[in-house]
Amino acid sequence: MIKVGIVGGTGYTGVELLRILVNHPDVSLQVITSRSEEGVRVDDMYPNLRGHTDLVFSVPDAAQLGECDVVFFATPHGVAHALAEEILNAGARVIDLSADFRIQDVPTWEQWYGQPHGAPELLPEAVYGLPEVNREQIRNARLIAVPGCYPTSVQLGFIPLLEKGLLKDQMLIADCKSGVSGAGRGAKVGSLLCETSESMMAYAVAGHRHLPEIRQGLARAAGKDVELTFVPHLTPMIRGIHSTLYARIEPGTDLQALFEERYKDEPFVDVVPAGSHPATRSVKGSNTCRLALHYHEHTGQLVILSVIDNLVKGASGQAVQNMNIMFGLAERSGLNQVALMP
Amino acid sequence: MIKVGIVGGTGYTGVELLRILVNHPDVSLQVITSRSEEGVRVDDMYPNLRGHTDLVFSVPDAAQLGECDVVFFATPHGVAHALAEEILNAGARVIDLSADFRIQDVPTWEQWYGQPHGAPELLPEAVYGLPEVNREQIRNARLIAVPGCYPTSVQLGFIPLLEKGLLKDQMLIADCKSGVSGAGRGAKVGSLLCETSESMMAYAVAGHRHLPEIRQGLARAAGKDVELTFVPHLTPMIRGIHSTLYARIEPGTDLQALFEERYKDEPFVDVVPAGSHPATRSVKGSNTCRLALHYHEHTGQLVILSVIDNLVKGASGQAVQNMNIMFGLAERSGLNQVALMP
Amino acid sequence: MIKVGIVGGTGYTGVELLRILVNHPDVSLQVITSRSEEGVRVDDMYPNLRGHTDLVFSVPDAAQLGECDVVFFATPHGVAHALAEEILNAGARVIDLSADFRIQDVPTWEQWYGQPHGAPELLPEAVYGLPEVNREQIRNARLIAVPGCYPTSVQLGFIPLLEKGLLKDQMLIADCKSGVSGAGRGAKVGSLLCETSESMMAYAVAGHRHLPEIRQGLARAAGKDVELTFVPHLTPMIRGIHSTLYARIEPGTDLQALFEERYKDEPFVDVVPAGSHPATRSVKGSNTCRLALHYHEHTGQLVILSVIDNLVKGASGQAVQNMNIMFGLAERSGLNQVALMP
Amino acid sequence: MIKVGIVGGTGYTGVELLRILVNHPDVSLQVITSRSEEGVRVDDMYPNLRGHTDLVFSVPDAAQLGECDVVFFATPHGVAHALAEEILNAGARVIDLSADFRIQDVPTWEQWYGQPHGAPELLPEAVYGLPEVNREQIRNARLIAVPGCYPTSVQLGFIPLLEKGLLKDQMLIADCKSGVSGAGRGAKVGSLLCETSESMMAYAVAGHRHLPEIRQGLARAAGKDVELTFVPHLTPMIRGIHSTLYARIEPGTDLQALFEERYKDEPFVDVVPAGSHPATRSVKGSNTCRLALHYHEHTGQLVILSVIDNLVKGASGQAVQNMNIMFGLAERSGLNQVALMP
Repeated sequence: MIKVGIVGGTGYTGVELLRILVNHPDVSLQVITSRSEEGVRVDDMYPNLRGHTDLVFSVPDAAQLGECDVVFFATPHGVAHALAEEILNAGARVIDLSADFRIQDVPTWEQWYGQPHGAPELLPEAVYGLPEVNREQIRNARLIAVPGCYPTSVQLGFIPLLEKGLLKDQMLIADCKSGVSGAGRGAKVGSLLCETSESMMAYAVAGHRHLPEIRQGLARAAGKDVELTFVPHLTPMIRGIHSTLYARIEPGTDLQALFEERYKDEPFVDVVPAGSHPATRSVKGSNTCRLALHYHEHTGQLVILSVIDNLVKGASGQAVQNMNIMFGLAERSGLNQVALMP
Repeated sequence: MIKVGIVGGTGYTGVELLRILVNHPDVSLQVITSRSEEGVRVDDMYPNLRGHTDLVFSVPDAAQLGECDVVFFATPHGVAHALAEEILNAGARVIDLSADFRIQDVPTWEQWYGQPHGAPELLPEAVYGLPEVNREQIRNARLIAVPGCYPTSVQLGFIPLLEKGLLKDQMLIADCKSGVSGAGRGAKVGSLLCETSESMMAYAVAGHRHLPEIRQGLARAAGKDVELTFVPHLTPMIRGIHSTLYARIEPGTDLQALFEERYKDEPFVDVVPAGSHPATRSVKGSNTCRLALHYHEHTGQLVILSVIDNLVKGASGQAVQNMNIMFGLAERSGLNQVALMP
Repeated sequence: MIKVGIVGGTGYTGVELLRILVNHPDVSLQVITSRSEEGVRVDDMYPNLRGHTDLVFSVPDAAQLGECDVVFFATPHGVAHALAEEILNAGARVIDLSADFRIQDVPTWEQWYGQPHGAPELLPEAVYGLPEVNREQIRNARLIAVPGCYPTSVQLGFIPLLEKGLLKDQMLIADCKSGVSGAGRGAKVGSLLCETSESMMAYAVAGHRHLPEIRQGLARAAGKDVELTFVPHLTPMIRGIHSTLYARIEPGTDLQALFEERYKDEPFVDVVPAGSHPATRSVKGSNTCRLALHYHEHTGQLVILSVIDNLVKGASGQAVQNMNIMFGLAERSGLNQVALMP
Repeated sequence: MIKVGIVGGTGYTGVELLRILVNHPDVSLQVITSRSEEGVRVDDMYPNLRGHTDLVFSVPDAAQLGECDVVFFATPHGVAHALAEEILNAGARVIDLSADFRIQDVPTWEQWYGQPHGAPELLPEAVYGLPEVNREQIRNARLIAVPGCYPTSVQLGFIPLLEKGLLKDQMLIADCKSGVSGAGRGAKVGSLLCETSESMMAYAVAGHRHLPEIRQGLARAAGKDVELTFVPHLTPMIRGIHSTLYARIEPGTDLQALFEERYKDEPFVDVVPAGSHPATRSVKGSNTCRLALHYHEHTGQLVILSVIDNLVKGASGQAVQNMNIMFGLAERSGLNQVALMP
C-alpha cells in the first residue's frame, strides 16, 4: 500500500482527490492537512465521504508528511513552493496540483502569478505531469506539476497536429467553456448560483494565467513558438470543460487516423468517431478526455472538440494517474469510474 | 461470476444499472435487450460507457435470458408481467425495477396502473426488495420487486416509528421533492429543460401511483393501516429525492438513538447527527439513504429529512443490492461509489 | 411624479427595486445610497440597467433622503432602525424591506435577530405591508414594514381559512422551497453554484427568523395563536418560492369558492382552478401570488400550493405595491410585468 | 391601436410575442391561431398570461387574419410560405419569425431546409428584418423576414468591420453558445433537462441552417463573399446566446470608436466599455444586444463578444421592433423591459 498525504484538502480538488483515493485499492491515506479546519473530521465537511474515511484535518507537519510515500498539494499558489523541498528531502515524492511548478520560465511565472517564485531551484527536476506527453519522465520523477484544467483539454487537442507540423499558419484559437467549479470553493460573489446560473460569459479575454502554460506545452510539441488566442468562458454548470479548438490545416492528411494512432495506447484519451459531438456530461466524474474532429475541406478549417471533467482529468484524476505511473501501478487503478449520466 | 441480463436497457434506470454493473467485480454482463435499438452498441447510445462495455442491444429472447443467473427488468409497466414467468421457468432469477410486482393487492394495482394485472399468479412469491425490511426473504427469492424511488425514501424515514408504535395520531405527511430524472427518458414536453429548470411545482397532489405502494409498506411496519398525505414535487435538478416527513410523536423517546439502533447494521442507511440537514448532493451517484431527525418538543412534531439518489438507492443501486443479497455477495460489492460532490 | 430614494441598493432586492422603478410611470428616482460603492454608476454594477438610469451610488444623507416623497430601505437588519426616524422627521415616508419593523413584540424581535431593537418607539405606527390584509392602514402610513418572502407566501395561503375559523386542529405545516436569491448577494460558500446547484436541502428546521413573523400574521387572522411547523428548503434555482401548506379542515365548505371570494378584488392574488399545480416559473419576475387548493375528503387534509417570486411579491414588488397604495396610484402601476416563461 | 394576429402561438416564440404584446400600449391583439389547441384559452397553456389576456386559440382563417393590420407567423418552416400571400392580399402586413423568407436564393433555401420553396414569388419584396441594417426598407415593407437568433448576434458583431473593409483575411469564426429554448418547445429527448443540464456540447459542426443566412448578411455588408466557420453549442440554460467572434484585423483603427459610432443611434445595440465581458443574463428578457471588443495587438486578433436573448432580440422582440418601425411607432414602444437579473 502506498502511503499518501494531502496538503490542503478543503477545496474542490481536495475533496475530489479524496473521492478517488478512498476507493483506490493500492492507497492508504495517512494524513490530510488544513490549518483552518484543524481537528475537524473530513466527513463533517464533506458528508459524501461518511462511511468512507475517518480522517481528521491536521496542521501540516513536514516530518509527518515526509513519512508518506507521496504527498499531494491541493493548495493555493505559493504553498508548494514553501513546503515541497522539505518534504522531498524527507523522502516523499510530491504531486503538486497548483501552478507552482508548471512553468519552467521563472519570470513568466512571476509575471502571471504576481509574486516571487519561491522555489526556482526545484524547477529543473519538476516534471510536467501530462502522461500523454511525459509518461517516461513521470515514472522516475520526485516532483510532478499537474497540468491545469484548460491546458489539459487544449494540449490534448492540438498536440497531434503540432507534433506532425500540419498547421497552415501559426494562428490557433481555443474557445473554452468551463463549469463554475473551476473557480474553486472560495466565497466569491462571482461564483454564486444567482450570478452564474442561467447565464454565459467570457472572462479574462485580455489574458488568463493558463495561457503561458498552454503556450509552453504547444511550443514543446511544435518545436517552436505557436501563436494562440485563448478565450475562457464561465458556463452554468458545476463540472466540465468543453474546448472548441480551431486550426487551419492543409488538406491531404487523414486526421482521424492520425489522432486515433497518436492516442491508441492512452487509457484516458478517447478519440470518438468522426462527426461526433461529445458532451461534457459523457466524462462527468471520469478521468477521460474525449476528442472529436471536424474538418471543413473548402476552408481548410479544422474544428477539434475536447471535453474533460475539470476536477478529474483536469486536476485530481490526472494527479492520481501520475501517482499510478510513478509507483508502477496499473494506470487505471482507482480511476475506472464511469461518468454519471444522466 | 454471475451471468446477468438486462431487459429494456435504454432508459435512465437501464444506463444506471450498466454504470454500476460494468465495474461490479462479480458480474459478467451477458445480454441487454431493446426492441427499438436492436443492433446498436450500448456505448453509441450512452457514450459514458465507451471503453467499459462492448454490449449491443438485442431483441429480448426468453431462452437466452433464461441462461443468465439473474435478469433485471428496467422496462415500462406490464413488460415484466408478460416475460417474467418464462424466464423464471428457464431457471434465471428476476429483479424487476418496474412496478409490476410491488403491490400485492391486484385490484389496487389495476386501479392505479390502469391496466389488467398480467401475472397475478407470481405475486405470492414476489418479494418486495427493500433490504432494510426484507433481507432474509430476499436471500432466497426468485422474483424481486424493487421498490419505487419515493417509496424507498419515505419508508426508510417512517418505518422505525411505526415498528415501535410511536405515532400520536395516524396522520403522516410526506412532502417529497424529486429531480427530473424520475420522469424517465421519454420525450415529454413536461420534462424539457425549458419547462422544468428555474422552477418548482407540485404534481399529482390528488393521487400518485407511489401512494398505494407506500401505504402498503407503512401498514406492514405498523401492523395496521396508516393515513398518509403524499405530495410529490418536481425539482430543477437531474437526480435526487428529498423527502420531508412529518409525524406527531409523544415526547419521551430518544428518537435519534432509536433510528441509529434500527439502522446500525445497514450498509446503505446513514443516520446523520441530530440537527443536521443532509443535501441530496451528498448521495448523488451513491446507494446511500441519509436520514436526519428534528423533533419540536413544544408541538410534538417530528420532522424527518430523508435523501436518496432516485436512480441509485431509488432504483438501480437498490436492484444491485438485492442481487448481492440473493447471491451471497458482500452487500457493498459494486456499490461503493462516493457521491459526486460538488 | 413621486420622488423616490433608495437606501442600500446593492443587494438583490435593491436591483429588483430599480428594475421596477426605472419603468414606473409615476416615479422619479432621486437618490440611491451605498457606502461601499460610493461614486460607482448603478449600471456599472448592474449592467441590465444600462440605458435605463444614470444614477450613481452616494453615501446616505438623511437631509437629502428627507427631500424625497418616499424612501425604500433595502438594507441589512438594523440600518432602518438607525435611520428611519430622521428621514420620517424630514418629511419623507419610509418603506422598509428589512425585518426591522415587521415584528411588533420587541423581545421576540431581539431574540430572533440577536441584537437590541433600535427603534421601538416607531413600532406603534409601523404598518405591516401586506396589502391583502392591511390595505386601508397602508394608505395613510408613514412607515411600512414590507413582509418577508416566506411570510407572504404562507400567510396568503392560510389566511382565508383562519379568518373563517375552519381549522379542525391548530397544527399547520408550511413546507417551503425557496430559490437561492433568498439568501442574498453576500459572498457565502453556502450560496455558491457548486454548493447549491443539482441539490436540494432543508435548513433551519429548528427555527427560522421568518417563523415569528408568520405566527404573528396567522394569529392576527385567527384571533388567537396558531401552532405552525415551518420547514424552509434551499432549491436549485435563482428565484421563486413554492409553499406547500397543510391544514386539516372539516368537510362541508366550498374552499375554492371561499378563496376566490376572499381574493376577488386583489390585483396580485390569483386563485387558480381547483386541481391545478402552479409552478414558480408562472410568476417569475411578476408580482403575482398564485394559490391552488387540493382537498382530500377522506382524510380532511387540505393542501394549499402557494407560489411567488421571492424578489417581487416577496420583496421589491410588494414594496412598490405599498407605495402605489400610499400615494393613491393605480395598484398595478409599474407592476404589470408578465412572468418570464420559459 | 394596431390590430394584431398571431399564427401559431403555441411555441416559445409565440408565448414570447404574447408576453411583449399584451403590454404594448399601441397594440390590440385580435386573434391567435393553433390547429392543435383550438378552443383552448391561451392562459390555460401559458399561465403566466393569466390576467393579461382572454384570447382563445382558433383555427387559422385567412380572411379573419387579413382584417388585422399585421400578422406575425411563429410557425414551423413552410407555413408562412403557404399562408402569407393570401393574408397580404387581404390587406394585412406580415412579419414572419420562421426562416421562410430569410434567404433570397431559392436553391440555397431548399438545400438547407430540405423542402421545395413554397413562395418564391414573394421573395423580391421580403425585407430582412434586421433594423440596424434595413431600417428604411422595413418602414414600407409588407413582408418581413425576422432574422434567426444566431444570425442576429453574429451579424451585429461583424458588420461594422465588414462595412469598413477592415479584415486582414477572409476567415471569420463564430463560436456561438445558445440556451436550450433555441431548440423550441418540441418534445425531443435532446432537449430534456436530464440530457442538457450540467453539460456543454457543440452540435451541427458540419453545417447548421443559420450558416447560409449569416453568410448572406455578411456578404451584403462586405460587398463580397466572406468565409465563415460557425460552431453552435448547446448551453445548460433556458435563454441567451453568447457569440464569441474572431476576426484578424490590421492594427491602426480605433475599433471601440468605430463600433460606438456605428450603433450610436440604435436603441437596442449597446457597445459596452472596452475590456468588458457582457453576460447573457444582462439581456435576459430584454431586446438588447450587448457588444464588447477585445483586440490583441501582438497577434492582430480581434475578439468580439455579442450577447442577446435568443427569444427577444433573437426572435419575438426583434419582430415587435420591426412592427414598431413599420407603423411609425416609437421603436422602444413595448420593448422597454429591463433584463431580469438575477
